[in-house]
Amino acid sequence: MDSIVREALFNQVRSWMLDAGTLIKDRIDDPLIVGTKSHANDLVTEVDQEVEKFFSEKIKQYYEDHLLLSEEGYGDDLQDTNGTIWIIDPIDGTMNFVNQRRNFAISVGIYHEGIGEIGFIYDVMANNLYSAMRDGGAFKNDRKLPMLNPEANLEESIICLNHYWLCENNIVNEKVMQSLVKRARGTRTYGSAALEFAHVAEGIVGAYLTLRLEPWDIAAGRIIVREVGGLTTDIDGNEVGMLDKSSIITGNSNVHSKILNDYLKNAKKESV
Amino acid sequence: MDSIVREALFNQVRSWMLDAGTLIKDRIDDPLIVGTKSHANDLVTEVDQEVEKFFSEKIKQYYEDHLLLSEEGYGDDLQDTNGTIWIIDPIDGTMNFVNQRRNFAISVGIYHEGIGEIGFIYDVMANNLYSAMRDGGAFKNDRKLPMLNPEANLEESIICLNHYWLCENNIVNEKVMQSLVKRARGTRTYGSAALEFAHVAEGIVGAYLTLRLEPWDIAAGRIIVREVGGLTTDIDGNEVGMLDKSSIITGNSNVHSKILNDYLKNAKKESV
Repeated sequence: MDSIVREALFNQVRSWMLDAGTLIKDRIDDPLIVGTKSHANDLVTEVDQEVEKFFSEKIKQYYEDHLLLSEEGYGDDLQDTNGTIWIIDPIDGTMNFVNQRRNFAISVGIYHEGIGEIGFIYDVMANNLYSAMRDGGAFKNDRKLPMLNPEANLEESIICLNHYWLCENNIVNEKVMQSLVKRARGTRTYGSAALEFAHVAEGIVGAYLTLRLEPWDIAAGRIIVREVGGLTTDIDGNEVGMLDKSSIITGNSNVHSKILNDYLKNAKKESV
Repeated sequence: MDSIVREALFNQVRSWMLDAGTLIKDRIDDPLIVGTKSHANDLVTEVDQEVEKFFSEKIKQYYEDHLLLSEEGYGDDLQDTNGTIWIIDPIDGTMNFVNQRRNFAISVGIYHEGIGEIGFIYDVMANNLYSAMRDGGAFKNDRKLPMLNPEANLEESIICLNHYWLCENNIVNEKVMQSLVKRARGTRTYGSAALEFAHVAEGIVGAYLTLRLEPWDIAAGRIIVREVGGLTTDIDGNEVGMLDKSSIITGNSNVHSKILNDYLKNAKKESV
């Protein structure tokens, strides 16, 4: 994507992110209709759908040749990564939205011919907008984020992971993951993949590990993390496809390598 | 404690909480000298010490008959709960303070003849001051917090707990705790006991479980949670002594009972 086109698109998306945030804030005290999707704790509300519809209509109106991959049903049926594709999670952290009315984010990543060009993560209630353009660095609001510390180590890092990694599961050996918990300085769980990517980009979290993420959970975050020198791979260390559902580790490059080599390579179950 | 005395003291402490917050904010971008205490991840900084010293000097100057129980060494050596005792954690969540420069709190609880009279938890960087006076309700800034929903249930609640509960430990059977994780709607870890109590009081978290807390980790929080109808006990369901180091569960009364009866009673190791 041409840099002038990219910058114009960036400014347009930025303005829509803020509009979508206002749409959510205006509804924040309303009673919610909470539905479920794949299982009892995979939640969806009408606000998720409204935010996705907002973006879907804007894209159709202003960028009719762009495609949309998204969570709540307004997207296109994609077969490949050709063209310009918006990958949107209208509310990442819907459980937090429902139970807490905060700690959720709007996540928008834009890819052109498979390459991540623009990423936005908007922590609506804290009013923090994380953003990045390819080769343009990453920002938290108007502040440019520094490159991640190349000397960070696992023993002095906080790691984000869901508690499920420590319970018996089909993907990794929970005993190995428990030993990782004991090695890190500390562990946290915030409940929004997009915000956990943003925290990695800010350098306040050394790495974030997660099972079975959908493309819209990571599309924006990986672009923002890349711009501060962080790495995002699957738990074998392979690059993650733009349309794949994967188990992911993103982090400071040093901490990422340490967790991958010392833990995940030993933890992966053969059958997967 | 007389209600007029209590209210005057409340207003005085409130003003000092804000002053202490300013003291921290003024230092927030400074390089820190990070020391360790009982183990490598039990951190302390000179800012913890300065904030405790600030309160210690104020108490000596204005309330010379009051006593101080606190984390960083400026306190008194208490043998009993007689008199008026301030229980202070100058920075609860020091690891977050060091690694994230946010998600920490100043915690001040004041007890008179063993009874919790006043509690303050100040999330300094988010600028949220949680407070309560005995029989006066709990507040987040100027907003009175509603009583907790008596019909809340575990399946629709987010539970806060550290990842260590799910690893082999001396206190509880980790397999039982893993089954709790699978029953709750979701689990989170924020890394500040005081803030986790505040989240319980706000109703955005159904319960918070934690191993081996010190008195200053819970002194303010339990007063605030009590004022919205929540319960705080040890993991046998017994009342927690004001000076005790205990494993704690605090929560919405319904969710608290469910976790205590269905999980903790089966999880407790005989040897403890």
